[in-house]
Amino acid sequence: MTQIVQCVPNISEGRRLDVVEKIIDQVRQTEGVQLLDYSSDHDHNRTVITYVGDLISVQEASFRLTAEAVKLIDMEKHEGAHPRIGAVDVIPFIPIDGITMKECVAGAEQLAQRINDELQVPTYLYGEAAKRPERKNLSNIRKGQYEGLKEAIKQEQRHPDFGKPQMHASAGAIVVGARMPLVAFNVNLGTDKIEVANYIARAVRESNGGFKNVKGMGVVLEERGQVQVSMNLENCQATPIYRVLETIRREAARFGVPVVGTEIVGLVPQQALVDVANWYLQLEDFDSKQVLENRLR
Amino acid sequence: MTQIVQCVPNISEGRRLDVVEKIIDQVRQTEGVQLLDYSSDHDHNRTVITYVGDLISVQEASFRLTAEAVKLIDMEKHEGAHPRIGAVDVIPFIPIDGITMKECVAGAEQLAQRINDELQVPTYLYGEAAKRPERKNLSNIRKGQYEGLKEAIKQEQRHPDFGKPQMHASAGAIVVGARMPLVAFNVNLGTDKIEVANYIARAVRESNGGFKNVKGMGVVLEERGQVQVSMNLENCQATPIYRVLETIRREAARFGVPVVGTEIVGLVPQQALVDVANWYLQLEDFDSKQVLENRLR
Repeated sequence: MTQIVQCVPNISEGRRLDVVEKIIDQVRQTEGVQLLDYSSDHDHNRTVITYVGDLISVQEASFRLTAEAVKLIDMEKHEGAHPRIGAVDVIPFIPIDGITMKECVAGAEQLAQRINDELQVPTYLYGEAAKRPERKNLSNIRKGQYEGLKEAIKQEQRHPDFGKPQMHASAGAIVVGARMPLVAFNVNLGTDKIEVANYIARAVRESNGGFKNVKGMGVVLEERGQVQVSMNLENCQATPIYRVLETIRREAARFGVPVVGTEIVGLVPQQALVDVANWYLQLEDFDSKQVLENRLR
Repeated sequence: MTQIVQCVPNISEGRRLDVVEKIIDQVRQTEGVQLLDYSSDHDHNRTVITYVGDLISVQEASFRLTAEAVKLIDMEKHEGAHPRIGAVDVIPFIPIDGITMKECVAGAEQLAQRINDELQVPTYLYGEAAKRPERKNLSNIRKGQYEGLKEAIKQEQRHPDFGKPQMHASAGAIVVGARMPLVAFNVNLGTDKIEVANYIARAVRESNGGFKNVKGMGVVLEERGQVQVSMNLENCQATPIYRVLETIRREAARFGVPVVGTEIVGLVPQQALVDVANWYLQLEDFDSKQVLENRLR
């Protein structure tokens, strides 16, 4: 079985599309890596790039992409709505198949070190790769953004994990890390009462005492005359889709409101759906090696 | 996207494992084919072999396997519990990805002709490839088995589709065909009353007025003190797993009996499980291209 690591770097350029293409070319030209998707946002002035491959190839593609971005993006001239601290803002490694989180963490650490060694950009480790507990949360590392971090980096608690406590003159600093795949999952309710969606969002999300690894909020679907619980599931292994959905069904039933449909936005790992099938079918001893397609890789 | 045809020949040898290995070597040595699994049964004196590849390669591997089996297996000396008519009993082609049933049928037909042309073994077409309606059902072709077919083959309605109406002196006859992937799905019930499992099996299986593409029977699970509805789902696209299971849940509830668990025996196509997840999650507009792994092929 081939090893599959997904990598989703966010670079601080979403307007000069020729520059974006040159940076993405580094991924296209790396053997063993498959570019799946990329999208640039003008207001955010930011591009999200998705590719997969074995760990070594993904590390190589990420390094080349970073080297090119450091060469072509000057943070002194960058403005955009999205928080960021460097030419490449964040590089997450995501274990998909045939690889453990631990191996992704080790891979992220190696990349962070190499970026500092060869490009002289200070690097931070976040998510599962974090060395300090507060750095698990990306927003703590980004506090003050590029502009504020120039000064703040000198404080001991803001020192980078690799490199001197000084921002790179044009590229700033870069965050590298590892996390589980994220699934954008929305549940549509048979009511137009936003209070119901908000109540349920609070019931299931981590920040209000709900499930760990769940972010969520109520959203009005004007055209449908319905409301939605819109969520990010940040670890479908520990907090599976069916458990969140069944909880929402129960909470909605308390208002006499049915779930009328759901949506998965973007990509979902096969295993997350196999787990759903496994649970609703009440399968005993099912092994994902029984999925025919898993034998082919 | 690569073309994937699955092929699952059953050969009439499950005891002389050196012979089995020599026959399987023919598959291993065919380019473009991946051997996924094989298992020999001593009582049945039979081996089931599973491999995948593009249609041309799968045809070639199947021909070479057949040639070797015809050389090494003498049906005059064969005994075993499972019904069979030849050294290779049956060769089904199964469309998995990037190929239609129609193309698999044409491929099966070519192979059946080649086996007769080059090995002088008479061949029958079954399943979706059947030329006579009663030959859709494999057991009609197997009636009387190897021993009985020696005489019966002379009757017009038992003539082979390719070749003279006469069994090969040592290899008998061979059935080639095409079918949808088959899922072996068992539902375990919280009762030890076999009548309940038998009743439900009759309710869901095609032969008694139940769902098309479902074969099923009641089975006693001695050690667990429970009974089981044991099924073959012969077309999970037309007759999906969740619909059969939900019907069984309702029928069992009528006796106050719960479903305590289920089993999938052997391989299952990813799409069959994605369909299950899709249904229970009430997904709107889900596209199987959203499964991350499907982007990788």
